[in-house]
Formats: sequence, structure tokens, C-alpha cells
Amino acid sequence: MGMTSGLERPYNFSAGPAAMPEEVLRVAAAEMLDWHGSGMGVMEMSHRGKEFGAIAAKAEADLRQLLAVPDHFHILFMQGGGLAENAIVPMNLSRGTAADFVVTGSWSAKSHKEAQRYCQARVAASNADDRHTRLPDPAGWNLSADAAYVHLCTNETIHGVEVQDLPDLAALGSKAPLVIDFSSHVASRPIDWQRVGLAFGGAQKNLGPAGLTLVIVRDDLLGHALEICPSAFDYKTVADNGSMYNTPPTWGIYVAGLTFDWLLRQTEGDAHGIEAMARRNIAKAKLLYGFIDGSGFYENRVDPACRSRMNVPFFLRDESRNEAFLAGAKAAGLLQLKGHKSVGGMRASIYNAMPLAGVQALVDYMREFETLQA
Amino acid sequence: MGMTSGLERPYNFSAGPAAMPEEVLRVAAAEMLDWHGSGMGVMEMSHRGKEFGAIAAKAEADLRQLLAVPDHFHILFMQGGGLAENAIVPMNLSRGTAADFVVTGSWSAKSHKEAQRYCQARVAASNADDRHTRLPDPAGWNLSADAAYVHLCTNETIHGVEVQDLPDLAALGSKAPLVIDFSSHVASRPIDWQRVGLAFGGAQKNLGPAGLTLVIVRDDLLGHALEICPSAFDYKTVADNGSMYNTPPTWGIYVAGLTFDWLLRQTEGDAHGIEAMARRNIAKAKLLYGFIDGSGFYENRVDPACRSRMNVPFFLRDESRNEAFLAGAKAAGLLQLKGHKSVGGMRASIYNAMPLAGVQALVDYMREFETLQA
Repeated sequence: MGMTSGLERPYNFSAGPAAMPEEVLRVAAAEMLDWHGSGMGVMEMSHRGKEFGAIAAKAEADLRQLLAVPDHFHILFMQGGGLAENAIVPMNLSRGTAADFVVTGSWSAKSHKEAQRYCQARVAASNADDRHTRLPDPAGWNLSADAAYVHLCTNETIHGVEVQDLPDLAALGSKAPLVIDFSSHVASRPIDWQRVGLAFGGAQKNLGPAGLTLVIVRDDLLGHALEICPSAFDYKTVADNGSMYNTPPTWGIYVAGLTFDWLLRQTEGDAHGIEAMARRNIAKAKLLYGFIDGSGFYENRVDPACRSRMNVPFFLRDESRNEAFLAGAKAAGLLQLKGHKSVGGMRASIYNAMPLAGVQALVDYMREFETLQA
Repeated sequence: MGMTSGLERPYNFSAGPAAMPEEVLRVAAAEMLDWHGSGMGVMEMSHRGKEFGAIAAKAEADLRQLLAVPDHFHILFMQGGGLAENAIVPMNLSRGTAADFVVTGSWSAKSHKEAQRYCQARVAASNADDRHTRLPDPAGWNLSADAAYVHLCTNETIHGVEVQDLPDLAALGSKAPLVIDFSSHVASRPIDWQRVGLAFGGAQKNLGPAGLTLVIVRDDLLGHALEICPSAFDYKTVADNGSMYNTPPTWGIYVAGLTFDWLLRQTEGDAHGIEAMARRNIAKAKLLYGFIDGSGFYENRVDPACRSRMNVPFFLRDESRNEAFLAGAKAAGLLQLKGHKSVGGMRASIYNAMPLAGVQALVDYMREFETLQA
């Protein structure tokens, strides 16, 4: 794994901004000065011109196909990331009334806190007592009759907790639309859109560069923004202008579009696109969690029923060896494995762009490190 | 000017996103898969890692040097562009009271309209009666005693009107800080920071890719955001977190940083950096306006006292020849010259990345086109 040879790239386990498919990077580099004979790089194009119009239209159509987004949902390309959406969602959906939050880790806790500026933001359930290692059973959620929406983070990047099946709010007695923050597992598995009202996420984990935010929203949820919602963040204004009310993050849309195209071409056995990615992601997670669970040297503390396929926090039982572990990993071409400061230990983020071979290389290194320490 | 030869690039007169220095594009392409031996592309780096930390710190320091930003101003890297700032500025500065707007074209008109969501947004002066072709004399501005700030767009991209000298509000009897929207001429000329409280602009015209917004704000203006201001857009929160409260647009900061570095190295005679760019921009504008004014075939309708050095709207006196003009220009390697739909005609945007040779090529083509039509 020569870092300087230029032949093979290291494996990059960053939680985000994260590793991207090498093919996408190579195309982006090759087209930097001249996109498709236009004489312009993508960053130099008017967003209102036919060239960028074609790039944006293909990106949106490919994403719709990739995620099987129904026609009655709008796809919006926005800016500000998940943290901005924590304010933008209640400004658009709450109507100043109430909303229910399922708190499952750092990200949903932040969403709940921010929404308090705009509505009665209630906690319907929380796993704080379990140190964010288990998901509260939907049957026990305390849903409000008057909630304008229910917020759920379907993959907690920091705590490594993932919702495996979206809740059916109607079956739980709620008429509210479900809002999901899917920032850190979008495009890693299929989505049951019948159970979703709005989905949002930053692009920088599984889709493209930081600075692009994806919002997918059901038609009937547009047009209810509070008066104090900035025009650039009013979903209806964004939708009515084809995500070009303000100048969109054109480079981000372009690179995400290259990624969508790459994803659509992936196969795994007889599966294509997202189904193929889901199979690969299951195999990658099985390999890594299986090794950790079989080891007395490492541990993952998350309930196996809700372990994330994307973000795998783990600990060395002897934490005095953390620095040696990280230094050896880097030397072996395994980058950005340090855990989030709020959790500690290690974290391997194994998004779509991480091949099974990368996870195997990590497991091989972990086994070797354990052996050397024995 | 072979568009397909790959040896020479066409000249791109887009108003934004706009042409970038070729050197910047070449470096960005070369480093796409591996930044400085890190084994990661810039888009793949954690914004909290030491590699991106170094990129962001150098970008900020270089920009501070380039624009001679005093120490008591914060430099913030944000998202959403100028249209988002139209809401973010009053959310941070108005305290819900009043603000004065000098309306000089499309952009300041939009700023005034958006601010009405958050405060009493008053029109202190307007050039609408002059069809946005003259600047109202500051001595005649109707400034309010209780205004929290005064808004001025120092270069109107669409109408081609530029403020040549910043007003001294104190001398006009106002105690309010001046807010300038410098989106479309930032880094093209020096800024007198003694007359500025806050400056904002999208990067996509003169600094880098769309999706990065630059805010430069005096210390005393932080910490007064309205309760309904999203955390991600509260200047104090952004400043306290070194522009990393939410994940910043890392690629945009990187490319803008390459541009800052390029700008600092520019020389023109004995001038360096911004002074060198100002000289070049004056020479470019003089060449183009001089040719237009000397022609009976083309015209520019803006008062010479406030003509923009960056955006030159012009008309063929016989507008039936517009399509032929644009087709011939494209064939000659002169791109994106069509005027904004609200003004019509043509527009040549000649930002920092446009060399004098590009303006000369445009003038040569315009002369030839006129001759052929005669």
C-alpha cells in the first residue's frame, strides 16, 4: 500500500467528508479544463446555461432512478448541510406548532435543540439512558396528536446506530409525516418512500463533496414555510425554481451526478444499483463486526439489532494502545480511523466508496496489531 | 482559438459562475486524487483533520493579506450565496429594528425585499427612475437616525453599475455600519475597511466555485442575531467555530485558496496582488468601453462615472443582429456573452481571470462583426 507510488491509493475511513469512488475523481480531474468539448470547466459555467442545465437534469434524473423516488416527491439541491436543515425543516414544516423528535444520538439531539427556535419540539423517545447504543422500540414512542412532523435520524454517524426498518407512523396512530435525516447512509440501501414525508442529508458522506445538501420532499409539504424562512431556504421557492433560485453549488451537483452514474452501473451478483450497494454494504459490515465480536482485543458496544452498516465505532479494550494502533494503521495505508471526540476509541466509516478489499485490509491489520501486542 | 485542440482555451465571459485562472484549474486537477502526498483528495478529507485545517488556515490568511483585512474583522466561510445573505444579514444585524437600503439595481432590490421579513427595510435612495444606469449621490441619501445598518451593493452584476468610492457614512451624519454586497467585484480593487462594517459575497464570480460565500464582519457586529436565526447562519456561532460549526464547503475553500495564492503572486508594473489586479482591470475596462463608445454600432447606456470594471452590458444598436453576433462570437472562441434576460443585449463579464488578451480578442471580433455587417 504505497502512499507515494501513485499506483494504489490508501483506504480512507473518514466519517465525512469521505472517500469517493476513484473513477469519479479521475473523471472530475480529466474534465477540469474542458467539459465535453464546451471549452469550459464545470466550475466556470453559468448555472443558467444549457451545459450546466444538462448536468443538473441528468443528476436529478439519475438520483430519482437510483433511489426509486416517486413522482410526487421533489428532489432539491440545497446548501448548508444537515445542521442548516435542522432549522430549515421546522421553518418549512412546523407551521409554528409542534413536532416530535426521536433522539438516538448526537445528530438527532442537535435537530431537536435547533427546532425549539421555531416550534414546540418534543422528545417522543430517547436512547440517552442507553448511551445511544440501542434504538427505542417504535411501539413505545410518545407521539403527539398535533405534531406537524416526526423527526428521525436513520443513521447516527457518531454513535454508529442505524434504523434497519423505517417506522410506519400511521400504524402507530400518527398522521404526521416522517422526516428522516439520512445524511450518512443515503444511497447505501433502498428507502420505503411510502413511510417518508421528507428526507434530507449532506452529500459529503455517500454522495459527493461537502456543501451540497439533498432534500427529497413530498409535494403536499411544500408551501407552508413560516414568514421568517429565508427565500433561499423555502422549499417551495427552491422547487419552483428547479433548485436555481440562488446559484446552486454547481461543482457539488456535478460530482454527485458522476457518483449517481457510477452507482447506477454497480452490480453485485444479479443485483444492480442500490440493491447491489446494499449487498456489498451488508457483506462489509458482516466482515468487520464479525471480526470485532470474535476478538477479545476489540469491542463494539452497539446493540447488534441496530448496528450501522456505514459507521463502525470500536474500542481497543486496552485504550493505552490507541496511538500505536492509529500510527500503525496510517503506515499500513489505512487512514482517518480515529473515533469522534465525544465517543473516543476508533471509528471505521465504510461508505459506498469503500470496497470489501478495504474492509479486509482493515481486519487484516487489526488481527496483526493484536498479535504483535500479545 | 481552437475549441477542440486542447491547446488554447476559449475566452469565457460568463457573469458567474465565471472563468477561473487556468493555473488554478490545473493544480486542482493534478491534486484531485492525492493532495500533497496525503493519499486523499481534498474532497475526501475530514474538515477536522490536520490536512484540511492547513488548507483552510492558509486560505484565510492569504485572503486577509490579499484584501488587507484588519485584525478586528472576522473572515467567515459560509454557504447559500448572496441571496441567502439577504436574509442572514438582517437576521444578524437588524436587531428587529430598521435598516436603510440604497437600491441601485436587481441585486440591491432583492436585498431590500428580503430584509422586510426581519426589520423595517427602508429605501434611502434608488436609481430606478434612471433605469439603474446612474448612482444616486450619497449627499442625497435619506438615511434614518435609527437604522441598524445601511446596505449598498457595490457592483450590480446585471446592470453593470459599480461604486467607485465607498461612502463615508459618518460624514453623512449616520452612525450605522455600512454593509456591502461585493459579490461581483471582490478582489478586483482595494477596499477601504474604515468605511465598512460587513462585506459579503458569493465566491463564484471572482474567487472560486459556487457554493462558497464569503463574509467579512467587524467584531462588534457579532452576537446580536435574532432568536429565529439558524445556528448555522449566526455569525457569532460561525466565527466561534472557525467556520466549521457545520461542515464547510471544503472544495470551495480549497479552490478559493488556490485563487488567493494566484492573486497574491500577480504583478503589473511595480504593483502586486490586488493593486496589480486593479491596474489590469482598469486597462481591460478602458479598452472595452473605449471601443464601444467610439462605435456607432454598439452602445453602453451606463453613466461613465459608475461603469463597472467587471460587468459590461452592451447593445447592438440593431438588435436583429444579436443572434448572428452570438453565433459568430462562439465560433471565434468567445463564450457566454448573452446579456441577462432582464436587460437584454450582451454582457461581457471581465473578472480577474480574464486577461487583457481576452478583452482584445472580444474587441477585435466586435470590430470585425461590425465591418462584415456594413
